[in-house]
Amino acid sequence: MEKALEKAKILMEALPFITKFRGKTFVIKYGGNAMAKADLKSAFAQDILMLKYIGINPVIVHGGGPQIGEYLKKMGLESKFIGGLRITPKETMDVVEMVLGGLVNKNIVMLINKYAGGHIRAVGLTGKDGGLIRARKLDASEYFKEMGNFIPTELLDLGHVGEVEFIDTQILKHLEEDNYIPVIAPIGFDNEGNAYNINADFVAAEVAGALKAEKAIFLTDIEGLKDKDGNTISSIKVSQIKQMVEDGIITGGMIPKVKACITTLEKGVKKAHILDGRVLHCVLLEIFTSEGIGTEITLD
Amino acid sequence: MEKALEKAKILMEALPFITKFRGKTFVIKYGGNAMAKADLKSAFAQDILMLKYIGINPVIVHGGGPQIGEYLKKMGLESKFIGGLRITPKETMDVVEMVLGGLVNKNIVMLINKYAGGHIRAVGLTGKDGGLIRARKLDASEYFKEMGNFIPTELLDLGHVGEVEFIDTQILKHLEEDNYIPVIAPIGFDNEGNAYNINADFVAAEVAGALKAEKAIFLTDIEGLKDKDGNTISSIKVSQIKQMVEDGIITGGMIPKVKACITTLEKGVKKAHILDGRVLHCVLLEIFTSEGIGTEITLD
Amino acid sequence: MEKALEKAKILMEALPFITKFRGKTFVIKYGGNAMAKADLKSAFAQDILMLKYIGINPVIVHGGGPQIGEYLKKMGLESKFIGGLRITPKETMDVVEMVLGGLVNKNIVMLINKYAGGHIRAVGLTGKDGGLIRARKLDASEYFKEMGNFIPTELLDLGHVGEVEFIDTQILKHLEEDNYIPVIAPIGFDNEGNAYNINADFVAAEVAGALKAEKAIFLTDIEGLKDKDGNTISSIKVSQIKQMVEDGIITGGMIPKVKACITTLEKGVKKAHILDGRVLHCVLLEIFTSEGIGTEITLD
Amino acid sequence: MEKALEKAKILMEALPFITKFRGKTFVIKYGGNAMAKADLKSAFAQDILMLKYIGINPVIVHGGGPQIGEYLKKMGLESKFIGGLRITPKETMDVVEMVLGGLVNKNIVMLINKYAGGHIRAVGLTGKDGGLIRARKLDASEYFKEMGNFIPTELLDLGHVGEVEFIDTQILKHLEEDNYIPVIAPIGFDNEGNAYNINADFVAAEVAGALKAEKAIFLTDIEGLKDKDGNTISSIKVSQIKQMVEDGIITGGMIPKVKACITTLEKGVKKAHILDGRVLHCVLLEIFTSEGIGTEITLD
Amino acid sequence: MEKALEKAKILMEALPFITKFRGKTFVIKYGGNAMAKADLKSAFAQDILMLKYIGINPVIVHGGGPQIGEYLKKMGLESKFIGGLRITPKETMDVVEMVLGGLVNKNIVMLINKYAGGHIRAVGLTGKDGGLIRARKLDASEYFKEMGNFIPTELLDLGHVGEVEFIDTQILKHLEEDNYIPVIAPIGFDNEGNAYNINADFVAAEVAGALKAEKAIFLTDIEGLKDKDGNTISSIKVSQIKQMVEDGIITGGMIPKVKACITTLEKGVKKAHILDGRVLHCVLLEIFTSEGIGTEITLD
Amino acid sequence: MEKALEKAKILMEALPFITKFRGKTFVIKYGGNAMAKADLKSAFAQDILMLKYIGINPVIVHGGGPQIGEYLKKMGLESKFIGGLRITPKETMDVVEMVLGGLVNKNIVMLINKYAGGHIRAVGLTGKDGGLIRARKLDASEYFKEMGNFIPTELLDLGHVGEVEFIDTQILKHLEEDNYIPVIAPIGFDNEGNAYNINADFVAAEVAGALKAEKAIFLTDIEGLKDKDGNTISSIKVSQIKQMVEDGIITGGMIPKVKACITTLEKGVKKAHILDGRVLHCVLLEIFTSEGIGTEITLD
Repeated sequence: MEKALEKAKILMEALPFITKFRGKTFVIKYGGNAMAKADLKSAFAQDILMLKYIGINPVIVHGGGPQIGEYLKKMGLESKFIGGLRITPKETMDVVEMVLGGLVNKNIVMLINKYAGGHIRAVGLTGKDGGLIRARKLDASEYFKEMGNFIPTELLDLGHVGEVEFIDTQILKHLEEDNYIPVIAPIGFDNEGNAYNINADFVAAEVAGALKAEKAIFLTDIEGLKDKDGNTISSIKVSQIKQMVEDGIITGGMIPKVKACITTLEKGVKKAHILDGRVLHCVLLEIFTSEGIGTEITLD
Repeated sequence: MEKALEKAKILMEALPFITKFRGKTFVIKYGGNAMAKADLKSAFAQDILMLKYIGINPVIVHGGGPQIGEYLKKMGLESKFIGGLRITPKETMDVVEMVLGGLVNKNIVMLINKYAGGHIRAVGLTGKDGGLIRARKLDASEYFKEMGNFIPTELLDLGHVGEVEFIDTQILKHLEEDNYIPVIAPIGFDNEGNAYNINADFVAAEVAGALKAEKAIFLTDIEGLKDKDGNTISSIKVSQIKQMVEDGIITGGMIPKVKACITTLEKGVKKAHILDGRVLHCVLLEIFTSEGIGTEITLD
Repeated sequence: MEKALEKAKILMEALPFITKFRGKTFVIKYGGNAMAKADLKSAFAQDILMLKYIGINPVIVHGGGPQIGEYLKKMGLESKFIGGLRITPKETMDVVEMVLGGLVNKNIVMLINKYAGGHIRAVGLTGKDGGLIRARKLDASEYFKEMGNFIPTELLDLGHVGEVEFIDTQILKHLEEDNYIPVIAPIGFDNEGNAYNINADFVAAEVAGALKAEKAIFLTDIEGLKDKDGNTISSIKVSQIKQMVEDGIITGGMIPKVKACITTLEKGVKKAHILDGRVLHCVLLEIFTSEGIGTEITLD
Repeated sequence: MEKALEKAKILMEALPFITKFRGKTFVIKYGGNAMAKADLKSAFAQDILMLKYIGINPVIVHGGGPQIGEYLKKMGLESKFIGGLRITPKETMDVVEMVLGGLVNKNIVMLINKYAGGHIRAVGLTGKDGGLIRARKLDASEYFKEMGNFIPTELLDLGHVGEVEFIDTQILKHLEEDNYIPVIAPIGFDNEGNAYNINADFVAAEVAGALKAEKAIFLTDIEGLKDKDGNTISSIKVSQIKQMVEDGIITGGMIPKVKACITTLEKGVKKAHILDGRVLHCVLLEIFTSEGIGTEITLD
Repeated sequence: MEKALEKAKILMEALPFITKFRGKTFVIKYGGNAMAKADLKSAFAQDILMLKYIGINPVIVHGGGPQIGEYLKKMGLESKFIGGLRITPKETMDVVEMVLGGLVNKNIVMLINKYAGGHIRAVGLTGKDGGLIRARKLDASEYFKEMGNFIPTELLDLGHVGEVEFIDTQILKHLEEDNYIPVIAPIGFDNEGNAYNINADFVAAEVAGALKAEKAIFLTDIEGLKDKDGNTISSIKVSQIKQMVEDGIITGGMIPKVKACITTLEKGVKKAHILDGRVLHCVLLEIFTSEGIGTEITLD
Repeated sequence: MEKALEKAKILMEALPFITKFRGKTFVIKYGGNAMAKADLKSAFAQDILMLKYIGINPVIVHGGGPQIGEYLKKMGLESKFIGGLRITPKETMDVVEMVLGGLVNKNIVMLINKYAGGHIRAVGLTGKDGGLIRARKLDASEYFKEMGNFIPTELLDLGHVGEVEFIDTQILKHLEEDNYIPVIAPIGFDNEGNAYNINADFVAAEVAGALKAEKAIFLTDIEGLKDKDGNTISSIKVSQIKQMVEDGIITGGMIPKVKACITTLEKGVKKAHILDGRVLHCVLLEIFTSEGIGTEITLD
């Protein structure tokens, strides 16, 4: 009976958060280990359904770098990166679309549907479906400058690497009204019908901004942002992050991730979270327990 | 972190039950200790809100015998019972209405609203509001016979003791659509506008039947039905209960309670539960844990 | 046939008023003799239904001072008043809630439902139901000053005497949409869940203001406001009333009543009416006959 | 004040009828003196609006024989009748359409709209609008037989005299939903687009039948059906009417009228009424006073 | 097969226009030869239905001068015109209403319904129905001045010649929602219930303005506006038209027509079109072919 | 002008078909040359949009055999067929999913969206999205028997070749309500989450059956069914087809196609069409011209 009471208490700990977040939208960037290991995958699917059942609207944006690399290799195509960006000629872009939109995306859809019940189902989309992600070719020199990489770009063509121009939220709103969970592959298109490979963190940031989401949650393979002493920061302001980038505490691949967080906050999302996707049920724990986990970022 | 994982697992244990009960109605008879002690009261209010938040529609029917007794005493009026029924002349009936409809009912409403958020609120009703409970004077000799009490009733007038004639669910459905939690005092009315004091267990049974509820849950001050060896029964069929009454294993005040359970099942409710209201969060534990608690009753 | 024609003419006299008031809300303070005598009660119930049937939305706020007094006496509790306000310790407040919310309120509900048909029904509420009346402890010294009573209040605790802080009209709007007639007992609650006894005239004034009602109608036991020569005034402006208070023509218990009228007008209600509740069908006559009855008050 | 009370009582006499007829449809055949004299016209318009305001859906079907005759005369065209039916060659039919659909119909619409308020308005229709009245050429020999006129029809062509084949209630339902009062000229059309002049009593009977109306009310220039002693009958069954026709008590132009009543009752209308349209507010008096006026006809 | 391909290409030419005009409203003034000849009439009805089927909302306003003249003559009434306006005493106005509202209007309704299917139907209205066209007596001297006719008006009473005061679009919007095609006779009414004969071009212009229509299309018996060399102008600005009037290139009966075009554009309609109603399917050709036909007028 | 008239006539030829098919669903199997050549692709996209604009609901099911073959080859994987079925081990199935769901599907979506306007957009789905296609492993021996191939299957494992078990039309209905055009890749899933490669003709047949479609249209690279003399059959009954199979006139790859047609008709679809996808705008021509093209199949 004591154990039962313990259970009840834990369920009850969730109550104020349920009250608070009912009817709100959470955009979740899904990737890394959380998308690779069986137990983490199941836990993620259950977390997402739990959110949906209690009245939160989860929207998932996923990556898929390793899977793309694997298939390129199978086809004898090279994976070349510059400043963290994959050089994406047309032939590679086709593989990106196939792997992200046809394989990774549908596997996530299937994962969620396996646990789903009632009238709730996941539906996979790429940016082409319903005209969701209008994109343009990334301005690489601008990008590298912003990320603190001073890479000369004159002689450089990254190919189909894109950036978000506009999120048309219509399809997301219709799916939400009809009780579906959207799962988005980060592929955009332009007016000529060209496809673009876009960083999933930035797609998540833009989707969250366009939906005026309550939270944008980024699953990573780290515990959270670390201060200069290597301790995980539980809560931080945008201005402090900018300082940390300037001070060289945040570097390399973390820079685009924190930029995505800043973008989403500036577009109206209330909070950004960098979570450790290697923790089972990290999404649920962040949302429904008073301590939270990982790093929470807010505007000043 | 291990503790966090434990938490997540417990939250997850609830997932299949949430999936299963979404959109269903649960009628809960509230009374006894659960309505008397501060910690049990808070836990009950939270349980009810939790149900509502995850998409279950809770409807509460409450009693209030002790409070009625207390106020009758304050006014120098006698509390007389025959065969478990309070003799209720008009003067006493007014006190019953005041105490149940004005005091007990509104205290429960307040209790829930204190924890509520979003657009969810409790609304208190007696059977007069919206014409909810059409009643008639109880046929006492019939009743006593059914309860196994062979009390001669020729010279007996129980006054305003009633039984349900018809539940007009319209007001409950409207409140549900608009996201309210109905809290019902067991007072009925007849065509002449007379008020009747009705056993709350039977009101709960009839309301659940009229709403084609998924579950009718009766909070009591016992652990559940006991077999002849005194062990709590976790699951039982109606035919077995009838046998136990015949065999004299179920006696006295438990007879009307099991009759209420049988009534509600016969009117189309899927399961009836006799729960121990003295256990914190007993409603939540019954619904969201795989073991369940108390006694579950189903049709054969 | 002549009599028939006379009937038709009278029905027709109502037509322009029906045209004018369709879809509008009328808040009616019900009390005094109109709530005490059988024939006046029936006539009131019929008037209210007539309003509802022709498309007006009546909202009733009732008092119940005499009934409270009677029950306090039965329980051996004193009724003490200062400056027209009942001193209301916790024990007394419980009786106020019981009598107003459990007895008086439900009797009015029953009275209306007895005459109702179609899908129209009355539903009783106290300020706790649906979080309708958020209140706070009355600032007695402020109140007495405003009412022209210079009662020293330093040593004075009126207990649970409250004033309206906020009317949450959500439940009233939902009930209106679903064709119910709300009947409101003037009990408020604060953040700690304390109940407050509030002057029904002020509750009616605030409810009417929050609903942007067309009319606030106060049933009294007088013919209307009287001028200094004792003649009933049929129409008057707020500025004139203020002058009459200053000149000592309006005094005593009439001051809070006219203050309630002024409050409701200042909150956006088009007209306030002081009607003689001792006249059969006074509400109907005021609304549907060209002469009107009682005193009509408007902003300057 | 006594007069006021008298007024209130008369208004109240209407209450049970309002309760009873809310949401019901009344089809009213309008014609004769009621359509000719200014005071009767105003009274009719007001009656119709009163019905609409209290939640009854009035549908008006009008005639216009005298006006047709007058315009035919102006154009030097003959008005010839056989067995009560106007011989209607194409040229005459055009005049019928013009006068009924363009003049009489719009005058009634204007009459009602002059008194209307809120969002209520009349809209005029002929059977062509929205495909309302599908008709066919009247089978004259069949008709005369049924009406007890044994007129040889072999050499007879009545031209565009029609009978109802089918009422398409769609447009009436749409207008009702949007709060309009339909005013119908009794003109039908067939598959080839030919127009037909149809007896307005029969159109009213068929429209009422198709709408499953509560009442079909026929305004006439007589006090009601008379028994063999010349006394007005207040209530009668269909079988009794049939007997009276057989016995020669009902004769001539009254036969089609009672046939229309019988038709409408057989198609599911609850009551048919023959009212004296020369009485001011006859519609209102019939509906809202307990005595009623004219003759009420019901199925056996 | 080549012919088939040709067909497909022509159907395809319509696609971008369908995309562009979906959900938009087109007001079409119907008159002249298009309303007189059998083949032009059928083609017009089909065009209107085609618009409706592909999601455009056509609203038709028709004239009927010749038919009015013919019937006036039949009744021995004179047709007198001053400055292009028919002198309209009450007796004549009745004929105007009959002919336009009862005959011409219903013939157009019938014409369309004959080809209609699904749930689409035409419904005829005059300005009296649903209170559609509020009018006032035309200020003749003002009118003549504006039309460049300096006719002394002191001694002149044109009778029931009116101008639009206000279009109440409610009935049009309700009919559109319910999938009807409104057909409007240009008759208005004033507060006293007087009817007015209004130029159909101006009614079309005002209706289009009130509906914020995409296009106002005027069917005429000319090929379009002609420049000073007699060539048809395919596109022109309002300022250029004003210059042409000033320069005496546009004269006589064309002046009111271009004034109607200018009025409708100034009230917010995007384009006005003067089409040659003598061309089969002129409406369809204008809308669905890239060349268009007739003269298109836009604001500067 | 003559050419214009010709255009109008062709547009008009479509009118009765538009009337007839409004609100109906057409399922179109898209594949072969129609999916390969640029001009055929554009024409197809335009045809689909035209259907949508005029109120028909097109649902597209596509194949992609050649594209699968091409990518398997790029990865050094073999394409092996038995009896027309691709042997599909897990590794191949992944490629099937990627190519069909990620590449082919999204290219069709993009193709349509490029021409789309208003609020109309295409959305791509595989059978996993929204739980659309529940499948099971194909019973190969049963299949081969039905197709007239007597291939021994004891030692044969086709791997992930599936057949439809159940179509859950919920997502299709939601997309239709919200004005989207669904584009479906023929991939199903089973309870264990395994993916299956299903013949697109059969998926189209089952989807059409589940939606109770008006037509199932199969685009092929032949002119239609041929009789024994090699002439294209324009209309044929199911019983005749069965005879032709028996008689060996229909053979090989045409057998599954006609079986799909028969299946869809037996499941309630009104007509099946085998069209020559090599003809520009073949869909439009079939639907909107009176001659039709290809072979139309109906139940006896």
